[in-house]
Amino acid sequence: MLKSLARRPFAKPIGLCTVARRYAHAPVPFNWEDPLSSASLFTEEELAIQETARAYCQERMLPRVLDAYRDEHYDRTILTEMGELGLLGATIKGYGCAGVSSVASGLITREVERVDSGYRSGMSVQSSLVMGGIDEFGTPEQKEKYIPALAKGKMLGCFGLTEPNHGSDPGSMESVAKPHPTKPGYFSLSGSKTWITNSPIAELMLVWAKLKETGRIHGFLIEREKCPPGTLETPPLKNKNGLRASITGMIQLDECPVPKENMFPDVEGLKGPFSCLNSARFGIAWGVMGALEDCIARARTYALERRQFKNNPIAKYQLVQKKLSDAVTDASYGILAATQVGRLKDEGTLAPEMISMIKRQNCDRALVNARILQEVFGGNAVSDEYGIGRHVANLFVTQTYEVRSSLGNAHNENSD
Amino acid sequence: MLKSLARRPFAKPIGLCTVARRYAHAPVPFNWEDPLSSASLFTEEELAIQETARAYCQERMLPRVLDAYRDEHYDRTILTEMGELGLLGATIKGYGCAGVSSVASGLITREVERVDSGYRSGMSVQSSLVMGGIDEFGTPEQKEKYIPALAKGKMLGCFGLTEPNHGSDPGSMESVAKPHPTKPGYFSLSGSKTWITNSPIAELMLVWAKLKETGRIHGFLIEREKCPPGTLETPPLKNKNGLRASITGMIQLDECPVPKENMFPDVEGLKGPFSCLNSARFGIAWGVMGALEDCIARARTYALERRQFKNNPIAKYQLVQKKLSDAVTDASYGILAATQVGRLKDEGTLAPEMISMIKRQNCDRALVNARILQEVFGGNAVSDEYGIGRHVANLFVTQTYEVRSSLGNAHNENSD
Amino acid sequence: MLKSLARRPFAKPIGLCTVARRYAHAPVPFNWEDPLSSASLFTEEELAIQETARAYCQERMLPRVLDAYRDEHYDRTILTEMGELGLLGATIKGYGCAGVSSVASGLITREVERVDSGYRSGMSVQSSLVMGGIDEFGTPEQKEKYIPALAKGKMLGCFGLTEPNHGSDPGSMESVAKPHPTKPGYFSLSGSKTWITNSPIAELMLVWAKLKETGRIHGFLIEREKCPPGTLETPPLKNKNGLRASITGMIQLDECPVPKENMFPDVEGLKGPFSCLNSARFGIAWGVMGALEDCIARARTYALERRQFKNNPIAKYQLVQKKLSDAVTDASYGILAATQVGRLKDEGTLAPEMISMIKRQNCDRALVNARILQEVFGGNAVSDEYGIGRHVANLFVTQTYEVRSSLGNAHNENSD
Amino acid sequence: MLKSLARRPFAKPIGLCTVARRYAHAPVPFNWEDPLSSASLFTEEELAIQETARAYCQERMLPRVLDAYRDEHYDRTILTEMGELGLLGATIKGYGCAGVSSVASGLITREVERVDSGYRSGMSVQSSLVMGGIDEFGTPEQKEKYIPALAKGKMLGCFGLTEPNHGSDPGSMESVAKPHPTKPGYFSLSGSKTWITNSPIAELMLVWAKLKETGRIHGFLIEREKCPPGTLETPPLKNKNGLRASITGMIQLDECPVPKENMFPDVEGLKGPFSCLNSARFGIAWGVMGALEDCIARARTYALERRQFKNNPIAKYQLVQKKLSDAVTDASYGILAATQVGRLKDEGTLAPEMISMIKRQNCDRALVNARILQEVFGGNAVSDEYGIGRHVANLFVTQTYEVRSSLGNAHNENSD
Repeated sequence: MLKSLARRPFAKPIGLCTVARRYAHAPVPFNWEDPLSSASLFTEEELAIQETARAYCQERMLPRVLDAYRDEHYDRTILTEMGELGLLGATIKGYGCAGVSSVASGLITREVERVDSGYRSGMSVQSSLVMGGIDEFGTPEQKEKYIPALAKGKMLGCFGLTEPNHGSDPGSMESVAKPHPTKPGYFSLSGSKTWITNSPIAELMLVWAKLKETGRIHGFLIEREKCPPGTLETPPLKNKNGLRASITGMIQLDECPVPKENMFPDVEGLKGPFSCLNSARFGIAWGVMGALEDCIARARTYALERRQFKNNPIAKYQLVQKKLSDAVTDASYGILAATQVGRLKDEGTLAPEMISMIKRQNCDRALVNARILQEVFGGNAVSDEYGIGRHVANLFVTQTYEVRSSLGNAHNENSD
Repeated sequence: MLKSLARRPFAKPIGLCTVARRYAHAPVPFNWEDPLSSASLFTEEELAIQETARAYCQERMLPRVLDAYRDEHYDRTILTEMGELGLLGATIKGYGCAGVSSVASGLITREVERVDSGYRSGMSVQSSLVMGGIDEFGTPEQKEKYIPALAKGKMLGCFGLTEPNHGSDPGSMESVAKPHPTKPGYFSLSGSKTWITNSPIAELMLVWAKLKETGRIHGFLIEREKCPPGTLETPPLKNKNGLRASITGMIQLDECPVPKENMFPDVEGLKGPFSCLNSARFGIAWGVMGALEDCIARARTYALERRQFKNNPIAKYQLVQKKLSDAVTDASYGILAATQVGRLKDEGTLAPEMISMIKRQNCDRALVNARILQEVFGGNAVSDEYGIGRHVANLFVTQTYEVRSSLGNAHNENSD
Repeated sequence: MLKSLARRPFAKPIGLCTVARRYAHAPVPFNWEDPLSSASLFTEEELAIQETARAYCQERMLPRVLDAYRDEHYDRTILTEMGELGLLGATIKGYGCAGVSSVASGLITREVERVDSGYRSGMSVQSSLVMGGIDEFGTPEQKEKYIPALAKGKMLGCFGLTEPNHGSDPGSMESVAKPHPTKPGYFSLSGSKTWITNSPIAELMLVWAKLKETGRIHGFLIEREKCPPGTLETPPLKNKNGLRASITGMIQLDECPVPKENMFPDVEGLKGPFSCLNSARFGIAWGVMGALEDCIARARTYALERRQFKNNPIAKYQLVQKKLSDAVTDASYGILAATQVGRLKDEGTLAPEMISMIKRQNCDRALVNARILQEVFGGNAVSDEYGIGRHVANLFVTQTYEVRSSLGNAHNENSD
Repeated sequence: MLKSLARRPFAKPIGLCTVARRYAHAPVPFNWEDPLSSASLFTEEELAIQETARAYCQERMLPRVLDAYRDEHYDRTILTEMGELGLLGATIKGYGCAGVSSVASGLITREVERVDSGYRSGMSVQSSLVMGGIDEFGTPEQKEKYIPALAKGKMLGCFGLTEPNHGSDPGSMESVAKPHPTKPGYFSLSGSKTWITNSPIAELMLVWAKLKETGRIHGFLIEREKCPPGTLETPPLKNKNGLRASITGMIQLDECPVPKENMFPDVEGLKGPFSCLNSARFGIAWGVMGALEDCIARARTYALERRQFKNNPIAKYQLVQKKLSDAVTDASYGILAATQVGRLKDEGTLAPEMISMIKRQNCDRALVNARILQEVFGGNAVSDEYGIGRHVANLFVTQTYEVRSSLGNAHNENSD
């Protein structure tokens, strides 16, 4: 369990400060890693959870990411390890989950994405979209059956919403579920989903499709091993420009039989998938700040060590200083906003638009600043070993995904 | 006293929502005036103080500002009214001051600058620079003598630091204090200060000058009425591009006699003025968010009412929506950051760089967004009756002032 | 006539380089005032015309602008002086006009707006909108009657298109012309036009109104002195945020009798006014580059003279250098584009969208860079004597005006 | 020879308009591919050369680039093909080169980079840095010996200037040449160069090193096949974030013997390499506009074909339209500026700062707009098959390289 593991005596990660403790009542020196003392807003437990997550991510994930990104390879054991630490579905109460605060889960996400947005994507799908979806909309039997295995990382999930011709507008989806013509008690699902994180290796798929008789969208839980040959294909989508440390693919259903008890019982329409996406987007708002913080740390180190012109470290130049100052400011503002929304979420006083706002803003600021920090590396930025280019490519994707639906929804643009 | 006045039964200001109360535990609708529920972070008392300030500002200040700005005229009675309400030096404990929290004083500042940055400048000088300076560095006699009169607005103060050739670099100031050649117990002050808010009408001047014998900077309290003719001139600087509702001028001292007991006793060097400026800058970080919020409210109203092309309100167009969304987001982030710094200030865990950070960021975002919102008004923006151009011109100045010193100090630019 | 006057022995303007001559075949030193040698693209005649215009503007206009802007006063004699120099309607052939190239007229505009956008606005209305309109659409009698007087600046014109509720969408105008009920051979015009440059002092008004019987838009020439009392009012619009050196007002027509021979004979619909606006917008694309160039020159001088921190000129700092480099680049690109469009205009190979493009881009770059250059002045920017704030306020207006119609037209935004 | 080949009857490239001919004297429809009619500034011969280059690039290069980029593979035969067409060192007169104008060579570069910046890099090194360097600074014997083989693409060159610790500041280079201890008539070269395009496969290396006896920089031509084993290594630098279709590596020289006649005779100091770089940078300013134009074409096609929300093409939305309008404008401005500088180059009236200016601006605008256009593709941008992500990654590198030296040189930043 995360709460106990949080106190595990991990070695202090090299090159990263220990997460700051609540300040005593004395003036503090400026801390560039937490300029506005956001740590003072976290509980002891939350800080301990962040430290656990950070230690794992820096010690176990970070050494794998360079090769994973180069080879577009997702190491399945990461999810098992995260499950063992209690990092998956951490806000869920019961079913073997840690039941931590939303802020604590945000801090986990921030630590994972500090390493790589792709790793965070893989975790978000498992935690927010699949486990969160079942926890919110599933029957007691569905919860008992799936959440514990998902929490331990023994079962890997994916979330099938977007379709090839309906990326921003899922309400127009074409996937359909109808009573199975030959198997009583079963639906027959057909349709095609694309850009599905984890799909090629997932054992459990939460797929959204329209019931043919009503035209209303419902959620279905599909176990890969139960699908007859030829009814389910999950081809990978390779050669991505970003998020290469996560695995992406399609879900192709051709008259796939799904037991009726595997449908979510009550939720209809876009409310279901949008609720799941909101939860994931809350995590993204936290995660991208972690990625940006890693860019800051890398650029700062480079600027202090790289010397040009009379042996000056390039950190001495105003144009370099401004890049760092701007990024540090945006990161600290973003963390405060995400913390506030996390608190409101747990208090039950959240408006969904708040999540759209912090997701959009934090992704935007992370991307803009990461790109500017990339300039600090000059020609060396082209080498993938500095890591900054990977973050930039990842952050472009995070800005793009899970956003258009919300824009279309929240702002009601140009609808006549 | 502000704390009691806060409950005074002001009429609800027209066209502005009442300040939100702490939310109950139920999902809330999205509130564009406080998108991330910053109000949930304020105490009941702080909310009441904000309401008092808002009512006064909207009812009494707002009707005066258009003419004041056109005519470059500062209405001296505003300060008296603010004094009567307890809005001056509100964080000071004792001496007839309200002793409220830093966040409460930030909320007052936000309400004043929601009307006009010039009015806020006049108040900042009185509260943060003069009253704050005396409260922090003055002798008990100086405090007793000046703070109560300043708190009531009966006495008006100004702060003389910057000089014509040393705007960003006050350490090079040329103003000098030496023993008065003919008046024992007096210093003789000579020198020239420029861009001094309130100077032409101030009764009390806090002037920083170097002691000739040591070359160290000290603070001196100069009462206008005690200065012999010809030793003090305070010519106004007219024809400003912004902040026209505040009055600005020079302070010219020519062998002006100042009693030795009017010097601050202990503080030496730039520590004194920079400490005062930090306090003022904290207020600016709050104030500019108020100005931006007013720009948002004005642009939103215009966009909903102005119809073009097939009688569509222009709020229907994506390019208009984006301007509003961006501004609302930056305003809500800025308020959260200022609140956090206010809390740290009162807890005694503040690093001065935090204030530099939120001052810079909030001024920058206020200016950038105000300019973009100005575009919503199209050609009508050129009319001063829409108010947006006034905010834009003011905010450019707030971005510029009280910043370079800090940049020079905090970031140590290009010093060899 | 301009062509002969161009050789008039004006004294060389102080502080401004003589317009560069075509370069000889030898490497040239970098010229920050013309970084990409645009002067090499101009003919000897065009360069001479520019020099005439520059000398007049710097010697005669510049000394007047500070007071004009402060007092929101337009000096009517400026137009007479420009008429005497041949600067009005300079591209028109015949009728006492100079018949110069479009590039030459662009160079005149650039020199006028180098002083002030308001002065350029007054000239643009006279030259492009009124004289150009009559030259393109008028009867021979109308041309003979009005153009010579307009060319000499003895008669002042204005252009009435936009209405209070139809700023961006003139096709919805409500002004109407119908046969006069009592005066045979006359139309009766009623309606209201707003934001009309020069209207309060114009003797001739080119007003666009719909013929009641057809609903089609037509152009009418209205002489103020021929209008019976009570049928024409032209109240000024005061207290503008920008373009304060030009005069702006309304045109209110109430059953105003206009002779039938004063209607443009053939042109119907928006083609007429849009053609005039295109010509004016071509001039704006040139003019704003002049304003930006003046901002550059002012900021460069300030940065070289202002010393802060160890007596360094602030031009030594990277952040200042970058502002200047960016602005100089955008100015030189804008001049090349305007030159190219001018050549195409005279060759008859112009697409109207080209003008929309350079108007939008040059206004945008002028405004953005002027604002950034304003930062170079620090707190001193608030003093109107540095001139930069005036350009910034003017350029905001130039970005806004004469653009929305074109956007609505050229890009067909959001039409369903 | 290019001039004759230019008329070769290539099939018209699919999906791309034929390069526009000089316009006749009639109004033209707006052409989004050349909005400001830059083609009207090119000679018939230049247009024919562009058409030859475009046909080759679209028909022969484009089909290879996706795999080349994925696999980080440079196809050596491309250079041979370009040599056969006369595209290499095209401005050089004699030695089998075409002797075309600078604008013509810019048009070639634009067409190559329309496909990929990496291919353009490979060509730039061959044409501008190596062939151009020899042509400008070589002895007659060096020219006769190398230029014809380089022109045909039979010999591949590379350019060794930057070193691991001296990327932006080549004046501090550590590579050294001294008389060879055992081989009379030979220098012995030692040192390390990095980020050298083409180095792993180049047969001829133009390496800059300091003469030990004078400390002055000189250029040396090193033939790989003449180097004894162990004196030259050229290890590749793999896993680049961008320019993956070009090959990059190091040059490691360890007491490598180089005949004295292989040193450039006269040029000393940074004048030599900077002159070569200027020529290459002129090409980059053209090339990146080609890359941007390809981004525009791809985004435009996508926006017209992709339908979301009520089956509207996303090109219908203002936010998409603005992205395209901005990019098209910047591309057309950039081409005009590059054309102007090309003409000045051939006239001999060039200031080197002009090239710095257009290189910086065009790279900046290409990158900024390419990133914004990438957003048009939404989630699909992550697929490398849309090509836009490749351009974005490439353009970041082009912005970075060959720029810092120039900044350090031209603007003399922060030198004390």
